[in-house]
Amino acid sequence: MRTQVAIIGAGPSGLLLGQLLHKAGIDNVILERQTGDYVLGRIRAGILEQGTVDLMDEAGVGQRLHHDGIVHHHIELVFRGERHPIPIDDLTGGKVVTAYGQTELTRDLMDARRAAGLPTIYEAADVSLHGIDGDRPVVRWRQGGEARELSCDFVAGCDGFHGVSRATVKDKVTEYEKVYPFGWLGVLADTPPVSPHAIVYGNNERGFSLCSMRSLTRSRYYVQCPLDDKVEAWSDQRFWDELRRRLDPELAERIVTGPSIEKSIAPLRSFVAEPMRFGRLFLAGDAAHIVPPTGAKGLNLAASDVKYLSSALIEHYRERSQAGIEHYSDHALHRVWKAARFSWWLTTLMHRFPDTGAFGQRLQDAELEYLVKSRAASTVLAENYVGLPL
Amino acid sequence: MRTQVAIIGAGPSGLLLGQLLHKAGIDNVILERQTGDYVLGRIRAGILEQGTVDLMDEAGVGQRLHHDGIVHHHIELVFRGERHPIPIDDLTGGKVVTAYGQTELTRDLMDARRAAGLPTIYEAADVSLHGIDGDRPVVRWRQGGEARELSCDFVAGCDGFHGVSRATVKDKVTEYEKVYPFGWLGVLADTPPVSPHAIVYGNNERGFSLCSMRSLTRSRYYVQCPLDDKVEAWSDQRFWDELRRRLDPELAERIVTGPSIEKSIAPLRSFVAEPMRFGRLFLAGDAAHIVPPTGAKGLNLAASDVKYLSSALIEHYRERSQAGIEHYSDHALHRVWKAARFSWWLTTLMHRFPDTGAFGQRLQDAELEYLVKSRAASTVLAENYVGLPL
Repeated sequence: MRTQVAIIGAGPSGLLLGQLLHKAGIDNVILERQTGDYVLGRIRAGILEQGTVDLMDEAGVGQRLHHDGIVHHHIELVFRGERHPIPIDDLTGGKVVTAYGQTELTRDLMDARRAAGLPTIYEAADVSLHGIDGDRPVVRWRQGGEARELSCDFVAGCDGFHGVSRATVKDKVTEYEKVYPFGWLGVLADTPPVSPHAIVYGNNERGFSLCSMRSLTRSRYYVQCPLDDKVEAWSDQRFWDELRRRLDPELAERIVTGPSIEKSIAPLRSFVAEPMRFGRLFLAGDAAHIVPPTGAKGLNLAASDVKYLSSALIEHYRERSQAGIEHYSDHALHRVWKAARFSWWLTTLMHRFPDTGAFGQRLQDAELEYLVKSRAASTVLAENYVGLPL
Repeated sequence: MRTQVAIIGAGPSGLLLGQLLHKAGIDNVILERQTGDYVLGRIRAGILEQGTVDLMDEAGVGQRLHHDGIVHHHIELVFRGERHPIPIDDLTGGKVVTAYGQTELTRDLMDARRAAGLPTIYEAADVSLHGIDGDRPVVRWRQGGEARELSCDFVAGCDGFHGVSRATVKDKVTEYEKVYPFGWLGVLADTPPVSPHAIVYGNNERGFSLCSMRSLTRSRYYVQCPLDDKVEAWSDQRFWDELRRRLDPELAERIVTGPSIEKSIAPLRSFVAEPMRFGRLFLAGDAAHIVPPTGAKGLNLAASDVKYLSSALIEHYRERSQAGIEHYSDHALHRVWKAARFSWWLTTLMHRFPDTGAFGQRLQDAELEYLVKSRAASTVLAENYVGLPL
């Protein structure tokens, strides 16, 4: 079996890359360790930068997103019991973000791939990469007990933080990491979101909180919790009570509660691997970097990686040029580090850290107050939130 | 002996307050532990915000400042061997800062006070404050072995970090502090400044550096050094070599070296005391707060304290109102914390910290790059540098 680009991983990065390459007439095969349903069952981010929406359009899969996605013209910060809207559109010359669940985006990409008859191999076990330093990489895996092989020109590692792609080059990767001293307890509920037109970020003496949404009937809420907290310790009632105590009185009153349909605790991590290319293997998305979810940058960074990578590959096939391929890593990392910084900063600003101390807490208070009062500082938040230019 | 306002400390805060009160017809006496020459011999900051310049004008002592002060329309950041001008005037609608040594400013205030015949008692030993919770505070001290006493309506504690004013209320003060893991090695030299029209802030792998000035013939340079470094270990030659290595090649080439006329190592500290009023005792300037010198905020914060305090006292005597007096602490602290935050942030951005780690260093690199490329982020730096509104 042979293709031009072997894509490892059928998450949003791999699927979006496959679609963009296909549109440009470049053959690709996606290999995925799990089933399609498993991939769709993962609950992830849901805030898209304009650049990500544009890329979905470019891939020809933006229709449902435009219909069902909910455009946010502002976000809100809640601290000291008061709400402070940040008009991200006004501050950025009209840019917005769109709330659209990653599950839905993945489904759109899967549907399009199926409709185009493009090959996706699910339940590919024991995937291994070979010859990435030469001209003809080979991907091997097992399917139903049988050994399979795919030869290709390039391998795109879109297989996430725990995937085989980065593991294959682990001796050549420099890894940068920061682990945060708390987690997020998240609840998904089929209730109308308390703030359907703006993501709400809260910070009070009890910790961080986040009011988000997947649709007008499905809410996603989070509260900061200790890393060693157990989800079993959190009844739905305890969660709703805690969330209310971290918001201003008006929002607290308006929250519509209901049974949780998902409840989990996730740690927060910053991680960047350098470089993002090893011969004919490219890393993209979570395979190369993880950001804490505070800035909603994970999926959007994956999308910008895919944009750079698809452009580089298209340039290669169309113009026989190596330039894009050779610059991919620098190009992508440039944006990755800025988003990593923003995600770290917003996380630091909005959470309570166990070791902040009294001086540090006053600085955080002063920064929040300055941020909402200064147009320049609000613009810094807004222009990063909607996404720095590609 | 009796006066309306007893001012402790004949540094710039105390002298400026005395002058503003005098202009408003309020009697005041300044008590200073040292001689006038000693006060003038202290080498301190030299960058004035517009608000500080305006206050000098209001006090009627701005003439020489306007003649000799050097207006800076931009500052410069140097990193990765490149210079990045930040046009603070363009970014703030025309605001600038003025380079004018604190020694000169102090001299102007002393001269004006002498010319107006206002009482300043130098070499006042063993100053103590009494009855600040009542209506008639009393200040006692010893002069040439004799006990003296001054009764007053109010006491203004302008006597610096180590002064008696904050010590008097130490049981009632909440102190917030951060000590930085490095110091500044500073050199004063009678050479033309390498950058006469912009303060230059450098950050490279060898650490922070600063090119500043007192006049067109007197330079002030600094390099970050370990806290346990000794000034004796730094020959002039070693200092100039080190400074050059921390700048871009063009500036390094242009530096005019010469014998140092002062060389010292100072630790960096953030400190805030709350509240800033205790009955009829007010704290102002370094008596209440210390900032690391990176943002050039120390003298300017002292000036804004003095502005708030003089307004409160004038309001009290003219209108028999307590409002300004009662709000002084909150009012001043509001600005103090913002300046403390800015000074901490600029210090963090421009220095190399021993415990930053590889991830933290990449974040610093990314922030510097973002800062000089984003107009919003440059504006955040500029608007804080020229001084947030009073």
